Amino acid sequence: MLVHDLETPSVLIDLDRMERNISRMQALCDSAGVKFRPHIKTHKIPEIARMQLEAGAVGIACQKLTEAQVFIEAGINDIVIPYNIVGESKTRRLADMALYNRLAVSADSPAVIAGLSEAAKVNEIALRVLVELITDQNRAGTTVEGAVDLAKRIDADEHLHFAGLLVYPSYASIRPALQETLLRLHESGIGVDVVSGGGTGAAYHVQEVPEVTELRVGTYVFNDWMTVRGGWATLDDCAMTVKTTVVSRPTEDRAILDGGSKTLSSEVMDGGYGFIVEYPEARLYRLNEEHGYVDVSNCDERPQVGEVVHVVPVHTCVVTNLHHTLYGTRGENIEVEWAVAARGLVW
Amino acid sequence: MLVHDLETPSVLIDLDRMERNISRMQALCDSAGVKFRPHIKTHKIPEIARMQLEAGAVGIACQKLTEAQVFIEAGINDIVIPYNIVGESKTRRLADMALYNRLAVSADSPAVIAGLSEAAKVNEIALRVLVELITDQNRAGTTVEGAVDLAKRIDADEHLHFAGLLVYPSYASIRPALQETLLRLHESGIGVDVVSGGGTGAAYHVQEVPEVTELRVGTYVFNDWMTVRGGWATLDDCAMTVKTTVVSRPTEDRAILDGGSKTLSSEVMDGGYGFIVEYPEARLYRLNEEHGYVDVSNCDERPQVGEVVHVVPVHTCVVTNLHHTLYGTRGENIEVEWAVAARGLVW
Repeated sequence: MLVHDLETPSVLIDLDRMERNISRMQALCDSAGVKFRPHIKTHKIPEIARMQLEAGAVGIACQKLTEAQVFIEAGINDIVIPYNIVGESKTRRLADMALYNRLAVSADSPAVIAGLSEAAKVNEIALRVLVELITDQNRAGTTVEGAVDLAKRIDADEHLHFAGLLVYPSYASIRPALQETLLRLHESGIGVDVVSGGGTGAAYHVQEVPEVTELRVGTYVFNDWMTVRGGWATLDDCAMTVKTTVVSRPTEDRAILDGGSKTLSSEVMDGGYGFIVEYPEARLYRLNEEHGYVDVSNCDERPQVGEVVHVVPVHTCVVTNLHHTLYGTRGENIEVEWAVAARGLVW
Repeated sequence: MLVHDLETPSVLIDLDRMERNISRMQALCDSAGVKFRPHIKTHKIPEIARMQLEAGAVGIACQKLTEAQVFIEAGINDIVIPYNIVGESKTRRLADMALYNRLAVSADSPAVIAGLSEAAKVNEIALRVLVELITDQNRAGTTVEGAVDLAKRIDADEHLHFAGLLVYPSYASIRPALQETLLRLHESGIGVDVVSGGGTGAAYHVQEVPEVTELRVGTYVFNDWMTVRGGWATLDDCAMTVKTTVVSRPTEDRAILDGGSKTLSSEVMDGGYGFIVEYPEARLYRLNEEHGYVDVSNCDERPQVGEVVHVVPVHTCVVTNLHHTLYGTRGENIEVEWAVAARGLVW
């Protein structure tokens, strides 16, 4: 099938660009001497994870057990879950997965560790646990003091194995806390297998944080308007575009696209919901579920009803999650149709 | 199964509230003397559409042909598509659907009408077309002048039937344009079957726009933080809540929920991404894909790791579209599990 024959809106992945993104990030990690562990949230597709592994990645990262299950069933068995798994049914599922797969999970509180321990005990395993340090992101994670305490609890628990430290994102600002934690763990005689960093932006500064031994990165595989605006990619690195059609030109200055928040998500950056490749001066300024509002007043040429335009979305990961299928293209050809296998898995 | 046993995050629908919402909106339309046509975008579930029809609705509305197909296959045959259908493959599919179903579609330009006419001609049908008038929403639609011109083109086309006018939303501000268009169509001897209005907010003001003969409303069936803040519903009318778990308490003032933008969407209102039922003073101030950041500094009691809290989302329709299943609850019982049949259908 040709791209031309594909209905709109559809999500296209430029295979040349994606392949280049994959090999470039692997080369960056190789030259920095860190292991690379792609976060599959961006694509949610086992076939793409396999390309990342073939390029040299050591395993994958994903946030949810149900996502991990999809990739395990596809034969990918080295998985880090950088997320607090809470509740007995989930920790038991995790412990079951850990029987036959190389899993590690993060934790940032005694309550989370107690739950993991209980489940691991039932299965008589030593579950690998990374302790999450808090960063400038101010999301989950604990302090240096807390991390040392948690590492000791894990180390003392016969059903848990202290696997190391985890941060997100791993910018240089986290170094003092990382160094202090590592020093104190060393003084306590607790070994650290892994220091897991992450973030597409942070990846390009990985050499500034030599403590990091492994990187979790997602967005780089497709890139998006956010990574372009962050200075981490150019428009030529954006593998994902959304093919849309202009369905209305209600005024001289406005065009309406057949892709809205159900297609592009509601993520917004600097007042824009995406970048229109064919009309760089246009502004995608508002979305309803099925309508994209475009201000074309700054465009010399203006699109007509029926015209096809391609949108680089603000945030590629959430777009993937909205669609049943991604279409891998090479020039005008659709070379592959991928079902988004781990789409919408929130447990 | 009990609600208690359901994993988080999960989307719950309080059946008592939903049933009350359905009968109340139908009663409102009945007493105003307008036909009611629920927009299925909010639930995307044929079983719920059937409840709306059994309560007295005349048919349904949906934006996309693939959505219409799901409901047609479920035996619902009276459908308005308030959207410009553009491109030959889509107009042909529409014309095929119109062979065996009572369909109407909107249009706002000669280009759209030409495409509809061509497809209708192939099937030798008279496709029913509503002309969309522009409103304060400044989305799609045409002017009074444009509408009269389009109605004449449709009327003159042997393969199209002019079915009336369509507006969104149908607030009183649209009356002057509606009246002028109706007058000019009357002067031109063109009959108007339907004036189709819409919007949950506008529904409560339907009596201020007596020209409207039929209403398309979606959100009312579940309601959300947006309809509450709009004054169109109370918290007690919110049938949809998202069951989530507190997975981290990294600081005194912050809690992290296991539902983020992949669960609640990125729609935001007054800086908040949802209302937490158990902690009305808490503020859900930021989302990542799997993390909900909650400021609990104003709460006297504060949640612990492992605690379950329920979130009223900002916008219910986009939440439905993110999930495979909605759980219909009556008290503590899960009475029904609905697959979101028309989820993610964007063509």
